[in-house]
Amino acid sequence: MTTQLDPRGSPVKFARVALIGCGLIGTSLVRRMRRDGLVDSVVGCDTSPRVRNVVEALEIVDEAVADPGEAVAEADLVVLAVPMSAYDAIGRAMARELAPGTIVTDVGSVKRSAVQALTQHIPVGAHFIPGHPIAGTEYSGPEAGFAELFDGRYVLLTPLPGTESAALDRLTALWQACGAIVESMEPAHHDHVLGITSHLPHLIAYTIVGTAANLEEDLRQEVIKYSASGFRDFTRIAASDPIMWRDVFLANREAVLDIVQRFTEDLTAIQRAIRWEQGDVLEDLFRRTREIRRSVIDYRQAD
Amino acid sequence: MTTQLDPRGSPVKFARVALIGCGLIGTSLVRRMRRDGLVDSVVGCDTSPRVRNVVEALEIVDEAVADPGEAVAEADLVVLAVPMSAYDAIGRAMARELAPGTIVTDVGSVKRSAVQALTQHIPVGAHFIPGHPIAGTEYSGPEAGFAELFDGRYVLLTPLPGTESAALDRLTALWQACGAIVESMEPAHHDHVLGITSHLPHLIAYTIVGTAANLEEDLRQEVIKYSASGFRDFTRIAASDPIMWRDVFLANREAVLDIVQRFTEDLTAIQRAIRWEQGDVLEDLFRRTREIRRSVIDYRQAD
Repeated sequence: MTTQLDPRGSPVKFARVALIGCGLIGTSLVRRMRRDGLVDSVVGCDTSPRVRNVVEALEIVDEAVADPGEAVAEADLVVLAVPMSAYDAIGRAMARELAPGTIVTDVGSVKRSAVQALTQHIPVGAHFIPGHPIAGTEYSGPEAGFAELFDGRYVLLTPLPGTESAALDRLTALWQACGAIVESMEPAHHDHVLGITSHLPHLIAYTIVGTAANLEEDLRQEVIKYSASGFRDFTRIAASDPIMWRDVFLANREAVLDIVQRFTEDLTAIQRAIRWEQGDVLEDLFRRTREIRRSVIDYRQAD
Repeated sequence: MTTQLDPRGSPVKFARVALIGCGLIGTSLVRRMRRDGLVDSVVGCDTSPRVRNVVEALEIVDEAVADPGEAVAEADLVVLAVPMSAYDAIGRAMARELAPGTIVTDVGSVKRSAVQALTQHIPVGAHFIPGHPIAGTEYSGPEAGFAELFDGRYVLLTPLPGTESAALDRLTALWQACGAIVESMEPAHHDHVLGITSHLPHLIAYTIVGTAANLEEDLRQEVIKYSASGFRDFTRIAASDPIMWRDVFLANREAVLDIVQRFTEDLTAIQRAIRWEQGDVLEDLFRRTREIRRSVIDYRQAD
């Protein structure tokens, strides 16, 4: 891999990163930055004393603090990696301490609401560039992070009109140096696409595993035991972080409800085909969905 | 692993296996049997000339024929591994050729309809024991089979009242020798459990990938591109064999429609919680589904 250059032609490097929220995504990013010399010092910020102890003990950060304002002072890069319901309070807490020229980004899964919650708190001279790395595992927390998480994964940036291109180039170069493929799009378009490709699948997986959770105890045990027949793939998705996903569905409410409605219509059509034994309708659908899988493999996005 | 003994105390071994349907599951079974010396000779039967050529060329079978009656003559084990809509015709074609003492089994995903389609064709003296290995991949066809497919996987047998225990023990010993964990249950109970753990997840995956397939071209390409965010797990399931799954949904129609109805009610409740911003309802559900994932891992059924 070639070294990523910042807009001034130097290898991309930050003096001090403030990581707000020390979970899987955030600690994976700073692990990579430290491993590859992309940052001089890292301050972690987390509301949980346990998490602050962990990230200091594992030397994921140089120091850990509880107060976002304290964390961002002197940082030239601030990364928000917290559930989206915390954005407004964190924006408020850090607003006064942001130095001119600081880049503020986030990793939240819904971009319109990120813009709405944070933009008002960013002082003139600082650069807010919303972002969303499409990467993750079923595990949460600082112990689950690893430096290679973003290798070959997409990072979507949704810069606002008027964003300084030098700041955007620098953040782009950072993510590329962390192994990611960076693309830009409009916040609303992001939320629409991710509503289909991420939020709907998670909602459906949560539902189906919830349906199983509501079964009588005996039957539930058997469903778990024989889960290799299909069910287990859903349990992996439905093990994602509960708070994060609660916030995603609430933040992207309209797009999610819209796509769930389309899904429900399609499900009803398939139920009807089963009820009336229309085998050709089923077979035709199943052939088309197989084609989609081939496209996913062609895009090298298969697991 | 210890050698599996048949009821007479000898290592389990068959003289001649007739494999009806040379796809992923069937060829995996005979690959294992040949590799481990569990059979002397194998005759494959398939309606497709291409498949017959492949299984002969790859030496998965000793010979391949088109006629089920020809295949089963002289066999002491017959394994049906074809889509369930073919059972009745195959049963009819092989009925007269089955020798006394022959064990006939199948690998179909729905057991009540297997019993219904085949029992009438099994002559007195032959032993019909329906079976269902819970194993598979997203790939189909004889090239996709491999000898290790059943290692650590469950095989469910649904013997009928009056089945000779010696025949059941022999079939059980065979599957165990192929690496599987064998359990017995009632056909109707099998279909109910698998309706939840296998048929519902496949139906939902087909639906969600179908919903994406119906999107406008531009949006569909983006959904595929960013599929790592959740969607791709569904595409793998929705790439399963179209004919096989058409037959499964039709054969287990009532159980599937019943469990889809429960799923739809649960989905409606979640939609409502999102619409009315009941974050605590969502969070509570997501915590419970995470527990189910832990149970799946505890059962060593996680991938």
